[in-house]
Amino acid sequence: MIIGDEPSCNIYLRRMRIVDVIARKRDGHALSREEIDRFVAGVTDGSVPDYQASALLMAIVIRGMSDEETAWLTDAMVRSGERVDLSDIPGVKVGKHSTGGVGDKVSIVLAPLAAACGVVFPKMSGRGLGHTGGTLDKLQAIPGFRVDLGIDEFKRVVREVGTSIIGQSASLAPADKKLYALRDVTATIESIPLISASIMSKKLAEGCNALLLDVKCGDGAFMKTQESARALAASMVAIGTHAGVRTEAFITDMEVPLGRAIGNSIELVECFDTLRGRGPGDLEAVARRFASRMVVLAGLEREREAADVRVDAALSSGRAIQTLAKLVEAQGGNPRVLDDAALLPHVAEREVYRAARSGFIGAMRAEALGRASNLLGAGRTTVNDSIDHAVGVMVLAKPGDEVREDQPLLELHHRGGRGVEAALRMCHDAVTIVDAPPPARLKVIAEVR
Amino acid sequence: MIIGDEPSCNIYLRRMRIVDVIARKRDGHALSREEIDRFVAGVTDGSVPDYQASALLMAIVIRGMSDEETAWLTDAMVRSGERVDLSDIPGVKVGKHSTGGVGDKVSIVLAPLAAACGVVFPKMSGRGLGHTGGTLDKLQAIPGFRVDLGIDEFKRVVREVGTSIIGQSASLAPADKKLYALRDVTATIESIPLISASIMSKKLAEGCNALLLDVKCGDGAFMKTQESARALAASMVAIGTHAGVRTEAFITDMEVPLGRAIGNSIELVECFDTLRGRGPGDLEAVARRFASRMVVLAGLEREREAADVRVDAALSSGRAIQTLAKLVEAQGGNPRVLDDAALLPHVAEREVYRAARSGFIGAMRAEALGRASNLLGAGRTTVNDSIDHAVGVMVLAKPGDEVREDQPLLELHHRGGRGVEAALRMCHDAVTIVDAPPPARLKVIAEVR
Repeated sequence: MIIGDEPSCNIYLRRMRIVDVIARKRDGHALSREEIDRFVAGVTDGSVPDYQASALLMAIVIRGMSDEETAWLTDAMVRSGERVDLSDIPGVKVGKHSTGGVGDKVSIVLAPLAAACGVVFPKMSGRGLGHTGGTLDKLQAIPGFRVDLGIDEFKRVVREVGTSIIGQSASLAPADKKLYALRDVTATIESIPLISASIMSKKLAEGCNALLLDVKCGDGAFMKTQESARALAASMVAIGTHAGVRTEAFITDMEVPLGRAIGNSIELVECFDTLRGRGPGDLEAVARRFASRMVVLAGLEREREAADVRVDAALSSGRAIQTLAKLVEAQGGNPRVLDDAALLPHVAEREVYRAARSGFIGAMRAEALGRASNLLGAGRTTVNDSIDHAVGVMVLAKPGDEVREDQPLLELHHRGGRGVEAALRMCHDAVTIVDAPPPARLKVIAEVR
Repeated sequence: MIIGDEPSCNIYLRRMRIVDVIARKRDGHALSREEIDRFVAGVTDGSVPDYQASALLMAIVIRGMSDEETAWLTDAMVRSGERVDLSDIPGVKVGKHSTGGVGDKVSIVLAPLAAACGVVFPKMSGRGLGHTGGTLDKLQAIPGFRVDLGIDEFKRVVREVGTSIIGQSASLAPADKKLYALRDVTATIESIPLISASIMSKKLAEGCNALLLDVKCGDGAFMKTQESARALAASMVAIGTHAGVRTEAFITDMEVPLGRAIGNSIELVECFDTLRGRGPGDLEAVARRFASRMVVLAGLEREREAADVRVDAALSSGRAIQTLAKLVEAQGGNPRVLDDAALLPHVAEREVYRAARSGFIGAMRAEALGRASNLLGAGRTTVNDSIDHAVGVMVLAKPGDEVREDQPLLELHHRGGRGVEAALRMCHDAVTIVDAPPPARLKVIAEVR
């Protein structure tokens, strides 16, 4: 049989038995592009039943996939749905994606900051489960803010403001959505090739020309070790490169929550402060680093030093916070929230977790603090849960800080005591006090290009 | 939580998340008895969906299972259905199972032969797919022969004749039936633990006190190598022993078809000949060896020599063939077929495959000859195919035989030319002629106890 031209290729795909594809991966062989296409097309149109898909997924989890197989899988998932066409927006469109962590509000600072530097930054976000809401949920704490813009409106805002943040359309990479749902219930999530193909299929379908990835690493992230974070970053960079999209990754620390706020409204307020140059140092440093690199990826500067100068100017001139105001207004939100936090959902009730003894903060574990925030109502456990935008946890002391016995370390913003007791137990699990200051940790651990 | 008494055990099983069980096997851990019970119970009652079952099966195929896990899996599958109670039949009930091969008619010779030696031999057979029909299909070539006896009728025939051969009830090990159907379409057949648990769950549910297994090995068998055949035999013997059933296995050769007939009616005629002491030497030798060991397993003799004498007497006295006549009559068949093969379905048409040159038969490959027989109509490809009992292939020369150019090597019994051309190509693939006689092969390669 001759493979190559479209018709005979289709015949070949129809004749290929999926059980033979499964057997080949089971036995540790690399799959061909045709075999991967057959699988993804069958998952998309339902002709490959779930029980065959899950058997193949398990074989992939255990046997692995080469960079080439992973790139083919990603490409097949991109082709399973629509691809956003951003070509009518002038300039290099630079996308950004984070693998997620506790108190990760980088996108909300970065979108206006990068746009204020001249970067064209169209941002689509997924709405996953998590300890707090995601970027979309946080933005929806702003009265009137719409994340459900159609593609044309999205592109109009990107043209006018330089950035727009909306929810990901269900028409992008539908094969990934089906496979992810199946992976979730068949213990086949934990696979670098499958994770990177899942993330990258959606990002590539968004139609950007360059992509900056934030691979979080540590206690509060999916990737617990630097080794796994580096492997995931390398895999995603390889996929992007294979697809002709310039892709780079930063590996950033998630042992400790980023910034001081863990919630929705309280994280927004922290973002506003950071865009005004008075936010937490770690958050500002990460946002500056990402914005600077996006300036380079956009082709606006060649060297980091010049890009850094642009970022500094965007912050010190006030253009960054003004760009956020424009973004909020363009998406239907009330821009006055930037000056009056009382317009955001908030609660007055506070509970404080105090230092059990004097010493230095040794650990302030992100995962437990995320759970604490979730217990107060700030996140979702199932997709149907509603989010309380007002509640959350404020981190008052960070690793390395010297503290006295009884000093407040964590402040819980709660609604009528909901979840407070359990959240305080989580706070207890999160904090370690030691006798000497621990070594300082890098916030940006590595770059992968 | 206290595990052990029935109610809390059930609570525990209900609370156990199957996705965690899958993850443990994915990561290469041994599963606990409770985890395996949870899986099999969930498959049986449908609460574990196929996509989770197939993911776990794939993890088992790749990661393996210990003898202990395999014994637990088997036991759980036995408990998923009914277990035949043979306790009201006096004596040690000895079962026998073959993993199947080309021209494997051993059970039809062995049942009357062992019974004639005094062994109580209740035999249930599955009806799988294969190159020729299985034991049940071959017996059904006898006009009137019924293989669908109820358990009470089955036990009555065993009491009266010493043996009975019927189809396996669907109520035995229903979990295995579900899992086997799923394995067939998810490339999860090839696993020693899963194969041995599948076979042994059905055999243990049949309620025998001892079990003799025939693990076929070579070109025409599922196990192609001695290593894999030994591993399967050892696994099944361990399961039987774990379950308190004395279990032994013979590993027998299946490079070459057993006997000379490959079909249904023609294999029956060969069985009649063998019970009269004029069958092919290899078939007689295997049947004698198995019958002798069953005499020992039944506790009728302690030593092989004495058991061999019993077998010899059963054959030479005519009691073996008379027992088959009784068996046929007891199950509704016409016993006159034993004396008049013309009463069996038969065809007159013949086609002959001849030696391409003079020399010695080097190989007479079982798999290709099985396919040839199947092409003529002797076997099933799907469960709904009907079988032509009359057709098949007669092997006229065996490895080691000296042949002249043009000498007939294979004789095809066909119906109106159906499949003849393709079958002749298979015959060509099956035969190798060499210059010097190949070393003789053992028919019984090893015993595993």
